Amino acid sequence: MVEKEHLNTTLICRIQEHANQSVTLNGWVYNSRRSGKIGFLLLRDGTGTIQCIIVKNDVGEDQFESFKSLTQESSLSVSGTVVENERAPGGFEIQVNTLTIHQVSEEYPITPKEHGTEFLMNNRHLWLRSKRQHAILKIRHEIIKATRDFFDSNDFTLVDTPILTPNVCEGTTTLFETEYFGQRAFLAQSGQLYGEANAFAFGRQYNFGPTFRAEKSKTRRHLLEFWMVEPEIAYCDLDEDMVWAEKMLEFIVQRVLENRKFELEILERDTSMLEKVKAPFPRISYTECVDMLKEGGFDFQWGGDFGSPEETYISEKFDRPVFVHRFPSAIKAFYMKRDPENEDLVMGMDVLAPEGYGEIIGGSEREADHDTLLKRINADGLSLDDFQWYLDLRKYGSVPHAGFGMGLERTVTWICKLSHLRETIPFPRMYGRLRP
Amino acid sequence: MVEKEHLNTTLICRIQEHANQSVTLNGWVYNSRRSGKIGFLLLRDGTGTIQCIIVKNDVGEDQFESFKSLTQESSLSVSGTVVENERAPGGFEIQVNTLTIHQVSEEYPITPKEHGTEFLMNNRHLWLRSKRQHAILKIRHEIIKATRDFFDSNDFTLVDTPILTPNVCEGTTTLFETEYFGQRAFLAQSGQLYGEANAFAFGRQYNFGPTFRAEKSKTRRHLLEFWMVEPEIAYCDLDEDMVWAEKMLEFIVQRVLENRKFELEILERDTSMLEKVKAPFPRISYTECVDMLKEGGFDFQWGGDFGSPEETYISEKFDRPVFVHRFPSAIKAFYMKRDPENEDLVMGMDVLAPEGYGEIIGGSEREADHDTLLKRINADGLSLDDFQWYLDLRKYGSVPHAGFGMGLERTVTWICKLSHLRETIPFPRMYGRLRP
Repeated sequence: MVEKEHLNTTLICRIQEHANQSVTLNGWVYNSRRSGKIGFLLLRDGTGTIQCIIVKNDVGEDQFESFKSLTQESSLSVSGTVVENERAPGGFEIQVNTLTIHQVSEEYPITPKEHGTEFLMNNRHLWLRSKRQHAILKIRHEIIKATRDFFDSNDFTLVDTPILTPNVCEGTTTLFETEYFGQRAFLAQSGQLYGEANAFAFGRQYNFGPTFRAEKSKTRRHLLEFWMVEPEIAYCDLDEDMVWAEKMLEFIVQRVLENRKFELEILERDTSMLEKVKAPFPRISYTECVDMLKEGGFDFQWGGDFGSPEETYISEKFDRPVFVHRFPSAIKAFYMKRDPENEDLVMGMDVLAPEGYGEIIGGSEREADHDTLLKRINADGLSLDDFQWYLDLRKYGSVPHAGFGMGLERTVTWICKLSHLRETIPFPRMYGRLRP
Repeated sequence: MVEKEHLNTTLICRIQEHANQSVTLNGWVYNSRRSGKIGFLLLRDGTGTIQCIIVKNDVGEDQFESFKSLTQESSLSVSGTVVENERAPGGFEIQVNTLTIHQVSEEYPITPKEHGTEFLMNNRHLWLRSKRQHAILKIRHEIIKATRDFFDSNDFTLVDTPILTPNVCEGTTTLFETEYFGQRAFLAQSGQLYGEANAFAFGRQYNFGPTFRAEKSKTRRHLLEFWMVEPEIAYCDLDEDMVWAEKMLEFIVQRVLENRKFELEILERDTSMLEKVKAPFPRISYTECVDMLKEGGFDFQWGGDFGSPEETYISEKFDRPVFVHRFPSAIKAFYMKRDPENEDLVMGMDVLAPEGYGEIIGGSEREADHDTLLKRINADGLSLDDFQWYLDLRKYGSVPHAGFGMGLERTVTWICKLSHLRETIPFPRMYGRLRP
């Protein structure tokens, strides 16, 4: 901890350490009202909110007048005594001695009344100050930290993979392209291929960064720029890959339940469903899913890809996340290992989140054999030149290996039980939205 | 921790927990040699290396023959007993019972002999397995983790800022551009402006992600894609900003000294210089630097920007990182607050790393006044449309605030005492290099 005497700030999130002491708080007006000669100020400082009591006789006529001038989001410092009060939200309040106003805010555009989504998105830089957005992004931070802590404490090395890449991993139609001094470069859709090289160097690696898909679709499950964590593990098969995924999800959810109770309450999240997120998760094959869908009245043929309705149907059958494994080879990427027992299947898996949220994780065991992989690259019409280094990994000490990618924003959406991804990232990039 | 019985792997970095036990290790041949009927195998598994003793009489004729066939980087599993041996590197060795070979590697291109830089860079996906590269990237991970832990434990919220942006922060000539469904988008050079919005919402925020500069220069201090951590703090002035920066650097360096002793030894890093990295750091003004440079025989005029030779000269005068503060306004960005005592200076600061490494941090107090900022945006010919949201922050509860950015790779270069940035990032992107 940085010693606080150097930094003359007390934060609201630390107020319980200062009971009965004099403090100075710096923040903004979240709300204010008066009742005769007493003013009530709800102060927010970005780490919490606290009620401040301003008594005219204590602060004097001038300061009480200036209190009256405060508008929503005006910036000010208050000095006073921290007093325990069980009726105050948070259990403490400030008996104010002095107020210092920094700026009386112009009329703040976001008021407690309802606003349209477009308006709020255009004012995202201000909307972030609202209680609900604040809570979602605090939970996002917790999920990121839990994810990193999980891998760090399990002997994974963080190995950042590049954003600017010459090669194309999954489909060329959804790539952002840029000019790289006379070459074409693309924004990475995944760090996986690099992650495989890293796993051979570090045993267990993860990368965690932004990824990009230029999808011309406006759904509540898609962002053009989103964050993904991708562990990749040498000497790992599909079964072990699933164990890593379920242990990670259990760890993340339990951390959020432990540390973000307050924020989950703001979001009115029913936590009983989250408490059930304990490994092991059920494992069902793609083929079993197809049977389930048919029984459920879906007109679905073996070989097709699940869309949102199918994923929702399947995930609603279970009270915790569920693994779907062994998909048809034809609908999956070239690098996935084929099932040794059935060439038509790949050793891949998805995790569907419960409560109808659908896919949050996709992973697989990777093809470790050089010649098989070479055939696939050729069959898919990919440039051999781009993948030579990737094939090298199968020449110089190839080993069974597996990994997965978890979409951060989809995970936040599920854990917070939101209806749209746009609230889970500070400045969302979607089709038709590049601002602010 | 994930229970290891699910994951039948023992890692070399955990070997001391298994003294006198039977284990199975999975890895690659780092080195092997024979002496009559005894084989010595240096096994690496990405988390460490360990000596394995293969005695012909123990493993039998067939396995001993297959041991002989092993080439550098061949993949194999060994089972045996963990035995303490103070002469073995790491203090333990494995008495092998069985060997299982996964792949005898083709002739590995990177041998213990010297290779040229171009060759090694072209084989970066394999070069990462080498001891020195491995050590550097382990230290990189430690620095990232320490940085995040520092901010997390000081009540900062991680708020990721976008990569795809419509607005231009520092100069238009060094931007990577992409087409965003009919609009122009640029890859972010900094998350700072967004960070300011986040600081007003969260009090203390940091972002930590990749940033991009399309610089057509090939120096050992430039990458086109690099990672930057950027704290931004509401109610913070230049003095406090410097305190945060020095406390952070002290924390990072001490963590590396504590946890990465082994890797620092591999790099033959003289740690006595790192042990001196304790706050407070010296603070000298730009104007004092100009005097120092003149005394040192530099032909340097007040108003100019420091280049590498100047930064090296100044930083070599001190035994720890040094703050240079209050630069000429004319050479610094529009958003920096002017010195209230002298309009020709900005309240900005750089940190120069010792041992001649030069700038690793740049920061400032930001201009908090709406009209002053508006004038600067106009004077710099920036598009008002792009900065309207940024100006909003000065209308709705503006407060003094400050922040800084630390270049991750420059910091790794200094802490590891390397001569070039290219070794500090897994897959470097430089002018003329986009592969692998």
